Amino acid sequence: MDFSSKLLENAVNEVSRLPGIGKQTALRLVLHLLKQPSENTKYLSEALLHLRNDVKTCEKCFNISDLILCDICSNPKRISEIVCVVEDIRDVMAIESTSQFNGLYHVLGGKISPIEGIGPQNLQIESLVQKVAKGEIRELIFALSSTMEGDTTNFYIYKQIEKFEIETSTIARGISVGDELAYADEVTLGRSILNRIPFSQSLKV
Amino acid sequence: MDFSSKLLENAVNEVSRLPGIGKQTALRLVLHLLKQPSENTKYLSEALLHLRNDVKTCEKCFNISDLILCDICSNPKRISEIVCVVEDIRDVMAIESTSQFNGLYHVLGGKISPIEGIGPQNLQIESLVQKVAKGEIRELIFALSSTMEGDTTNFYIYKQIEKFEIETSTIARGISVGDELAYADEVTLGRSILNRIPFSQSLKV
Repeated sequence: MDFSSKLLENAVNEVSRLPGIGKQTALRLVLHLLKQPSENTKYLSEALLHLRNDVKTCEKCFNISDLILCDICSNPKRISEIVCVVEDIRDVMAIESTSQFNGLYHVLGGKISPIEGIGPQNLQIESLVQKVAKGEIRELIFALSSTMEGDTTNFYIYKQIEKFEIETSTIARGISVGDELAYADEVTLGRSILNRIPFSQSLKV
Repeated sequence: MDFSSKLLENAVNEVSRLPGIGKQTALRLVLHLLKQPSENTKYLSEALLHLRNDVKTCEKCFNISDLILCDICSNPKRISEIVCVVEDIRDVMAIESTSQFNGLYHVLGGKISPIEGIGPQNLQIESLVQKVAKGEIRELIFALSSTMEGDTTNFYIYKQIEKFEIETSTIARGISVGDELAYADEVTLGRSILNRIPFSQSLKV
């Protein structure tokens, strides 16, 4: 790309370092900012800087938070003994949007992945085991994605907490609500048959 | 979306104001920045702010520039009498990357579009007519996109400069190099037959 301006080149380079954004898209975004009032660029820059510099991690569940304890952990109406283990804060947002869960979360910050060099020590696993050891948790719900890394992480955590007497569960895998059986992959369909539930139970939701 | 942090929500909202970026993509980008060193966010914000506040428009061709005159206009090796009329600075970059043009540009800043409320007075048309009237231009090459708005703009400019004795041309429309004829749209194919060139001329490129 031939840039007529170093400032433009620099801005395009910085924007194109974001994941999934190539040079052409970066150029389109940057030229859009140039056509908008300069306040828009100011607000965008400030919002990113404020977030990066001032955001905190909840010291209990490791969710992103503005305070030391996040809104969920500090909510007295939530059942603190039921904890849902998730990979990422996006998973917290996804589960929260269902309004079906009234316990707390524990955000691992990723999955065990030897290929990417992520081991148990890089994740919030030790802190989870501590919570279990202290008797703070009655039920642990595993809600990691069902990939090889997710299963490995589930199993690793399970092995660490096996000796403590707590309930463990994992979220149900099956055919999405509204999906046609004919188009489902066989692994999912197989699991949904193996893990079938009483019909009367399905009427409750 | 349920955000656990106002700072996060604010950053996602600002990023999702960019064209083609929805809330989910904005969240992905913002969370990526949080995982990176904070310098990266600083560099990004500063690059955008510097660009927005300090970038100039070349006073001759209206291209984006760091100086009053852009690199192209201030290059004595370029033929200043041949001017290529383009819509946007991206078109300048596209033509420059071909290394096939050695004249100057004139960036209109858009196309005449009554639907979007863009009239001739919103574009750099008057300044182009002035250049022609002063006798600065020998040949004008129209290189706008071949849409209704592009054709309208071409025609509007043509009517304004008709009375001056200069050459006018338009870039060739035809089948892309390497494309199969069977998949070309009929308008393009039709034009490429009407505007055929001597075979000997095609050997020169």
